[in-house]
Amino acid sequence: MNFASDNVFGVHERIMNALLAANAGTSPSYGVDPWTREAEERLSEVFERRVWSFLVMTGTAANALALSQLVPPYGAVFAHAELFTGGAKLIGIAEPAGKITPAAIARVIAGFIRAEHDPKPAAVSIAEATELGTLYTPAEIGRIAELCRASGMKLHMDGARFANAVAALGCAPADITWRAGVDALSFGCTKNGALALEAVIFFNDELADGFLYRRMRGGQLLSKGRFLGAQMLAYLEGDLWLNNARHANAMAKLLGEGLARLSGIRLAVDVAANEVFVIMPRTLFQAVCNEAHCYEWPGMGSGLESPGRDEALVRLVCSFRTTEEDVAKLLKLASAVRPLSAGRQ
Amino acid sequence: MNFASDNVFGVHERIMNALLAANAGTSPSYGVDPWTREAEERLSEVFERRVWSFLVMTGTAANALALSQLVPPYGAVFAHAELFTGGAKLIGIAEPAGKITPAAIARVIAGFIRAEHDPKPAAVSIAEATELGTLYTPAEIGRIAELCRASGMKLHMDGARFANAVAALGCAPADITWRAGVDALSFGCTKNGALALEAVIFFNDELADGFLYRRMRGGQLLSKGRFLGAQMLAYLEGDLWLNNARHANAMAKLLGEGLARLSGIRLAVDVAANEVFVIMPRTLFQAVCNEAHCYEWPGMGSGLESPGRDEALVRLVCSFRTTEEDVAKLLKLASAVRPLSAGRQ
Amino acid sequence: MNFASDNVFGVHERIMNALLAANAGTSPSYGVDPWTREAEERLSEVFERRVWSFLVMTGTAANALALSQLVPPYGAVFAHAELFTGGAKLIGIAEPAGKITPAAIARVIAGFIRAEHDPKPAAVSIAEATELGTLYTPAEIGRIAELCRASGMKLHMDGARFANAVAALGCAPADITWRAGVDALSFGCTKNGALALEAVIFFNDELADGFLYRRMRGGQLLSKGRFLGAQMLAYLEGDLWLNNARHANAMAKLLGEGLARLSGIRLAVDVAANEVFVIMPRTLFQAVCNEAHCYEWPGMGSGLESPGRDEALVRLVCSFRTTEEDVAKLLKLASAVRPLSAGRQ
Amino acid sequence: MNFASDNVFGVHERIMNALLAANAGTSPSYGVDPWTREAEERLSEVFERRVWSFLVMTGTAANALALSQLVPPYGAVFAHAELFTGGAKLIGIAEPAGKITPAAIARVIAGFIRAEHDPKPAAVSIAEATELGTLYTPAEIGRIAELCRASGMKLHMDGARFANAVAALGCAPADITWRAGVDALSFGCTKNGALALEAVIFFNDELADGFLYRRMRGGQLLSKGRFLGAQMLAYLEGDLWLNNARHANAMAKLLGEGLARLSGIRLAVDVAANEVFVIMPRTLFQAVCNEAHCYEWPGMGSGLESPGRDEALVRLVCSFRTTEEDVAKLLKLASAVRPLSAGRQ
Repeated sequence: MNFASDNVFGVHERIMNALLAANAGTSPSYGVDPWTREAEERLSEVFERRVWSFLVMTGTAANALALSQLVPPYGAVFAHAELFTGGAKLIGIAEPAGKITPAAIARVIAGFIRAEHDPKPAAVSIAEATELGTLYTPAEIGRIAELCRASGMKLHMDGARFANAVAALGCAPADITWRAGVDALSFGCTKNGALALEAVIFFNDELADGFLYRRMRGGQLLSKGRFLGAQMLAYLEGDLWLNNARHANAMAKLLGEGLARLSGIRLAVDVAANEVFVIMPRTLFQAVCNEAHCYEWPGMGSGLESPGRDEALVRLVCSFRTTEEDVAKLLKLASAVRPLSAGRQ
Repeated sequence: MNFASDNVFGVHERIMNALLAANAGTSPSYGVDPWTREAEERLSEVFERRVWSFLVMTGTAANALALSQLVPPYGAVFAHAELFTGGAKLIGIAEPAGKITPAAIARVIAGFIRAEHDPKPAAVSIAEATELGTLYTPAEIGRIAELCRASGMKLHMDGARFANAVAALGCAPADITWRAGVDALSFGCTKNGALALEAVIFFNDELADGFLYRRMRGGQLLSKGRFLGAQMLAYLEGDLWLNNARHANAMAKLLGEGLARLSGIRLAVDVAANEVFVIMPRTLFQAVCNEAHCYEWPGMGSGLESPGRDEALVRLVCSFRTTEEDVAKLLKLASAVRPLSAGRQ
Repeated sequence: MNFASDNVFGVHERIMNALLAANAGTSPSYGVDPWTREAEERLSEVFERRVWSFLVMTGTAANALALSQLVPPYGAVFAHAELFTGGAKLIGIAEPAGKITPAAIARVIAGFIRAEHDPKPAAVSIAEATELGTLYTPAEIGRIAELCRASGMKLHMDGARFANAVAALGCAPADITWRAGVDALSFGCTKNGALALEAVIFFNDELADGFLYRRMRGGQLLSKGRFLGAQMLAYLEGDLWLNNARHANAMAKLLGEGLARLSGIRLAVDVAANEVFVIMPRTLFQAVCNEAHCYEWPGMGSGLESPGRDEALVRLVCSFRTTEEDVAKLLKLASAVRPLSAGRQ
Repeated sequence: MNFASDNVFGVHERIMNALLAANAGTSPSYGVDPWTREAEERLSEVFERRVWSFLVMTGTAANALALSQLVPPYGAVFAHAELFTGGAKLIGIAEPAGKITPAAIARVIAGFIRAEHDPKPAAVSIAEATELGTLYTPAEIGRIAELCRASGMKLHMDGARFANAVAALGCAPADITWRAGVDALSFGCTKNGALALEAVIFFNDELADGFLYRRMRGGQLLSKGRFLGAQMLAYLEGDLWLNNARHANAMAKLLGEGLARLSGIRLAVDVAANEVFVIMPRTLFQAVCNEAHCYEWPGMGSGLESPGRDEALVRLVCSFRTTEEDVAKLLKLASAVRPLSAGRQ
């Protein structure tokens, strides 16, 4: 039982087997191997159009490289998250449910009345699913994209939990990306069963221009590149990525419903993907946190309801490896300690 | 038979098995897992002193992060190779056998007579083994380190083929690093059997200060960090790293001797580690290059003898997986096509 | 009559005359001329100790270069203002009266519980006087410096209006800088009568190390450097800098008192230096803004009282050239339009 | 008598007077004042077409900002000089007479056979006049521009001595810039009589996009911007810039001819603009250098003839303020010491 994060789990067996299989023989290095080439084609199929994809190893790298490609060093990126962009300024926007809205962005831009003394609005970066496990609908993304186009900005999607979003929305990957106006996507795989794999995906060849150089210079061009290509092929094969995400989402739903039924616990936000945010008595939290491996959420600027004085805002994350037994075990543990904690309050 | 590079080969079985074994259960993420902790201790043993080591995924990242830690953005790095250092200037020095000497560095520094109009000498970066497979002796490194100390510079070692150097020199890892005055080492593992693994190693805690932030910001902090730690443990276990390197070096020696015996072929530089540079008739090169997977070496600034008009300077690299059969096959192929090419000259 | 900013005024006659006088004959270039050398000595006298000073041309450059010297690229700077620091992250803190407090900084640092996933607190930058014309007392600065020392951070002071602060506090320049624990100061002169002159001042030679290179690389090393040195000499000569500031402060006081006596107008913050922030009926603002050259203040995050629905928050700035006649003229204008605007409401 | 550099001289009287005149009254700040606006129009006239010009204060800033606008951070700039470009790599090319040729650039590009492992050719930067006072003809520039277009590179001109080049070639400013294919020009004024003034000029509005932000962020947006505009107006008025340059060039010609007539002295390169490079006996150099304020030229990579063992390569620079008397004085001095030095050899 471990609800600390989706990355405390290992690698899905089919992906690990793909690494083993790819280990035979020699192969060209630096990303021009047959595995990577095929993975690029498969990604185009997944998105129902030609895409320009670049495999990298971490989500930080994917987001930072994608944004540095989209914005000039004097540009401003509107986002919830914290990213390194080689000089560009990140402007954090705090809105309910971890999501940002066109209205909030427009409000900040309207305050930029000092020409070049203010940063130049250059991009919006949204996380899908968000850090709080909430979701942007295709229509919401479309409205942000509209504002971007009108303001000369690009739209980037941080898809560290993209699979969970697609699985939860039941839409096509294209529906929440290029069809809705997204310019570049960080397509995350590590949290959902890969070892170390993300893809930076552009839906337009002009935007992808020169990105090969940026990936190399950023230290993200793996010499034995076949092992990234092989991960991606296994990840997409037979919809493993969606099945993993569906399972994680289902476990989170089960967990959220179970916890919400316990007295003294309430959901801080509706469960939509694979994360559960609950407010619980601090005594309960202290009783379960070690065994359940779950953390208090700092919550600053998250837009979530603040916990009361004797309460804790707690995040629990489910993964492709979380089992119904894990969920049941946690619920049982939480039920067991309830009377005690209530008695102490 | 593939002599293109040491990174066209896959992962050593013991390292792959370590990845499999590390995949069980959950583990803390972001580099604080037991595998990584133990790997850090093992590296201190290898270097016979406490070292501060940071696992990353590519050699470019290791070198760039290490140098950005050692030099200010207005500093100059003296090196043979090309690196990204966040603004610092690289000053290429071309000297025989791919090595740089204190005299050559001192000559350039002596030309910096314009105070801040010239870059500030900040570091020297030497590759051990060099790009040409040649070696710096402990004494040579010591003399460069002495110049560095006298000039207020730091000494970095690019150890993409560090194992091959240690194996060839028959010295202790400490002898060509901290004992000789090296401040930071990029300890490469990928070319020598790992999947994607390098360590940035500092021999001084002050120099390591803040490096955790730099690695994170550089997109090199792997969430499922145990898979880096596990690679390193297997790499060091039972001296796998040295045995792999010894084997690759032996194959290169065999290959070099065999080629040098063929008429019309001569070594461009003595074989010291796992690379062989030969000058051969262009017709011969064309006859073998497809099957042997070997390349012409650009050679600009390498300090090697330039090939004649109808000749080619060719690099052949041996790895832990290169077999005596591979070497014999190439020698046989080269012998077979010799008469033809000679006839055409 | 122009209350738009202190930089809409020209250059003080004595400084302009100094430029003329410095124009005779030839002089070494790039900052090693006699004027600059003497100016550096005079700055040490002003601060009652040896300081390391570097003349540059704009306040943006002074702040950006100073902070890039104090913080690593992965560091975080706590500030009210917006600055470019070569990668370091600025964390804006909004507190009343344009000032930041140790408590506010400590609160943010306490939220950095994710190690290198959060930025590394590296410096605090305070403006003296602040953007709102308010002042930190020596004791307040001392408390911030204490937090900095305890947290391993450096303390930078943005002194674009440093002269106004010293004049208003009636203290020694040393009292609000090194004696209070400030590590580096941007000593602004342009707003207070110079043509284009700021000095980056360090109170410690280690912190100044290499700054010559940074200034050169930042494009702030003027070839005809004597014209910066000459400005500084005239600026300090006979306390011109303090006299200019005292005059501007006095005019602001007069203006603030006069406006506060008019019905419907109230001070948004007490007048301490050379800026006046008032809340007035929007109709009045519209009636006077063209002639008085004054602006509405965006006010976002300024910590000032928000104006009412039909009101405007207006900034008026006085300079060394503002006259009592200018002030009287504005007050008369504002009185005259009062009945009308009241009638329209 | 001072032949050290063109920047050891002060400011031309007409430009100093323009500063005085511009000092009256108030003016909008940050570059939107009437002086600057008019200067921008005048620059369009000078170049016989609409140009996008941005006034800055140093040549380092002009070059660095222009190149950072033209090239991505992973791009390579081919140049003779050393510049800061926010990460882009400068590739120095050493060719005779301080000039680079299309053939030399093409040779380097042809060696870039490793895709993103080599830097991406992004721009060529040529100095007109060069550091050695030599000149590119319009046809030579055209051929470099052609190579740039064919290779997807931009062409930048470092015009620190642009006026000297135009005066010497007797051509229109347009002939060696946009008509020849130049994309951006650093139009230098400081060396030729201004106090601190350069303009970054683009001949295409797309290339100028966002440059306002870059100038601000680079600390080159002067608050009292009218003093840059006023300098430029005076600099262009009545062709002051060309007359100054013609005078400096004439003095250099006179000096070069005079020196070449003295026994033991020979020109290292033909005098074309305002610089004279001569090889003279070291004893003579030592006898005149203090009084004449002239330096030995490092010469590394300059492409000039190397001086003999007892000789010195010496640079002498003439300016708008150099007089015939200065030249005569130096020639007399050199003649006087000749016999002595000859006797000692």
